[in-house]
Amino acid sequence: MRILAFAKDGTKQLGIASDDRSFHPLADLAPHLPQSIEKVLGDPAILGELRQRLKEAGPGQPLDSVELLPFLGRANAFWALALNFKTHIRETGLTTSPHYPHLFLRTEASYVGSEQPIVAPPSDVAKAFDYEGELGVVIGRSGRHIPVEQALDHVAGYTVVNEGSVREYQIHNRQFGLGKNFEASGSYGPWLVTADEFGDPTRHTLQTRLNGIVRQRSRLDDLLIGIAQTVSYLSRGYTIRPGDMIAMGTPGALEPGPDDAEGRDLSAQFGPFPTPGLVHMRPGDLVEVEIDGIGVLRNDVIADRPFDYRAA
Amino acid sequence: MRILAFAKDGTKQLGIASDDRSFHPLADLAPHLPQSIEKVLGDPAILGELRQRLKEAGPGQPLDSVELLPFLGRANAFWALALNFKTHIRETGLTTSPHYPHLFLRTEASYVGSEQPIVAPPSDVAKAFDYEGELGVVIGRSGRHIPVEQALDHVAGYTVVNEGSVREYQIHNRQFGLGKNFEASGSYGPWLVTADEFGDPTRHTLQTRLNGIVRQRSRLDDLLIGIAQTVSYLSRGYTIRPGDMIAMGTPGALEPGPDDAEGRDLSAQFGPFPTPGLVHMRPGDLVEVEIDGIGVLRNDVIADRPFDYRAA
Repeated sequence: MRILAFAKDGTKQLGIASDDRSFHPLADLAPHLPQSIEKVLGDPAILGELRQRLKEAGPGQPLDSVELLPFLGRANAFWALALNFKTHIRETGLTTSPHYPHLFLRTEASYVGSEQPIVAPPSDVAKAFDYEGELGVVIGRSGRHIPVEQALDHVAGYTVVNEGSVREYQIHNRQFGLGKNFEASGSYGPWLVTADEFGDPTRHTLQTRLNGIVRQRSRLDDLLIGIAQTVSYLSRGYTIRPGDMIAMGTPGALEPGPDDAEGRDLSAQFGPFPTPGLVHMRPGDLVEVEIDGIGVLRNDVIADRPFDYRAA
Repeated sequence: MRILAFAKDGTKQLGIASDDRSFHPLADLAPHLPQSIEKVLGDPAILGELRQRLKEAGPGQPLDSVELLPFLGRANAFWALALNFKTHIRETGLTTSPHYPHLFLRTEASYVGSEQPIVAPPSDVAKAFDYEGELGVVIGRSGRHIPVEQALDHVAGYTVVNEGSVREYQIHNRQFGLGKNFEASGSYGPWLVTADEFGDPTRHTLQTRLNGIVRQRSRLDDLLIGIAQTVSYLSRGYTIRPGDMIAMGTPGALEPGPDDAEGRDLSAQFGPFPTPGLVHMRPGDLVEVEIDGIGVLRNDVIADRPFDYRAA
């Protein structure tokens, strides 16, 4: 089952996709159920009832008639992992612990949904604005001190993440801070696919395309620290909550082909880790992250407004 | 003016303190105004009206008749600064940029309010559980690309923060991650004091007491990166929002007196930076952080429940 959020009359509503192209508003499919993503994800009985109603429902509304929104709202925690694909560790030359996940947080404001524009910083603020295609793990059941063997039982489902990063700011100091939290610098979506439908994550493949050219491609079996291990680790410290999301890290860049001038041009790279096959996101670009079994997270990149003082 | 939140019939309500010991529920003082901290902080007209109504109001309810709660709810961003007092930089021997704030994020779940218990990790999970007394800066007016000279105009007010930290987890990897985000490991409160009433932050003094013994004491003029500079910096990356909070970093430990056996006993310290005068928080302790002009943030430290698997 696929759970999404869409805009209606200026509010965010939940929906259930019936196939790749159509959906039912949750308020129509099950008006008596709580219309809250955290309550839906946290309650197996609600998910079971939704599956049943979806079977009995008629054809849905066309998905392209609505604007999709980030389905999670203001979660307690948007975690992300640094340096968790071996290919990415190699290309940066950076170190990370082989025993513990390399975790940091993002804000709600740093993410948009699928088909909403990602905002590139003004070029006098930063130039090294990078895509990071990732698998997003969304918590369903709360829990504490969860053994690794039980950890996947707490995952409601999966989504696609573009963990967009502003490299110059990320290295201003030792904690990533603002560099991972520029306004609308990343995205997730287009929806959540429930864990039962997605199956074993390690059998899926992620790819990131910039303007149609594949820049990242990796099976999801290349993780240094796995999903169950990360969920279990987090639960040692706090009660993981429905709607907490964990972006599992990004793979390295694909080696560019011989005729890929853009991918080979290190002089156009402004980040700390010039890497063949890495191309920054720029206004006018189209960035897509796809995971088979979930779908395509697609965002246009637009220019931020000029650097001026704006107060509300 | 002092803005607080308190528990009533299982919900969180806002209140305005009339003095150190009494308050008015916002719903009584101004039932027609929005009962949302973000709307109140973000609107100077609302704050002005509240000041007027407070002047005209009769005596309030006793503060000690209610349970105070964290007044911010699930903010977009709970920022905190690492290594921002020169005394703390010296005692850790760590490096930080002299030009850019050293920023990381905390979750809502990591904070409780004043007089609510802070939870110490089970001793087989972590032993180096440390207080960090800090000034909390709360954003009122949204803004982007804010010049340093205008940055304080965007601050609604100030609060006291205990940015409680689990050192063993903080150094598991290069990003602090979970070590700054254990469940109920920190606190803020008891309320927000509006900027007009607090005045120049650098003229105030912070002190942290553990079981009545002063363990940190510093004027707030010892910051490496100042408040205005930090607010301006953040606004280069995203639109700062009402309710965003920034904990400005913690001072170093006070040198223990000659008869202070506990403060001199480095063998009882389990963190990476054994420091005379540092004493970890343990179950049964009382920790207080006080900033003159705001008040005392006071928390009992309790033991986490035993290490067992709990699922909801």
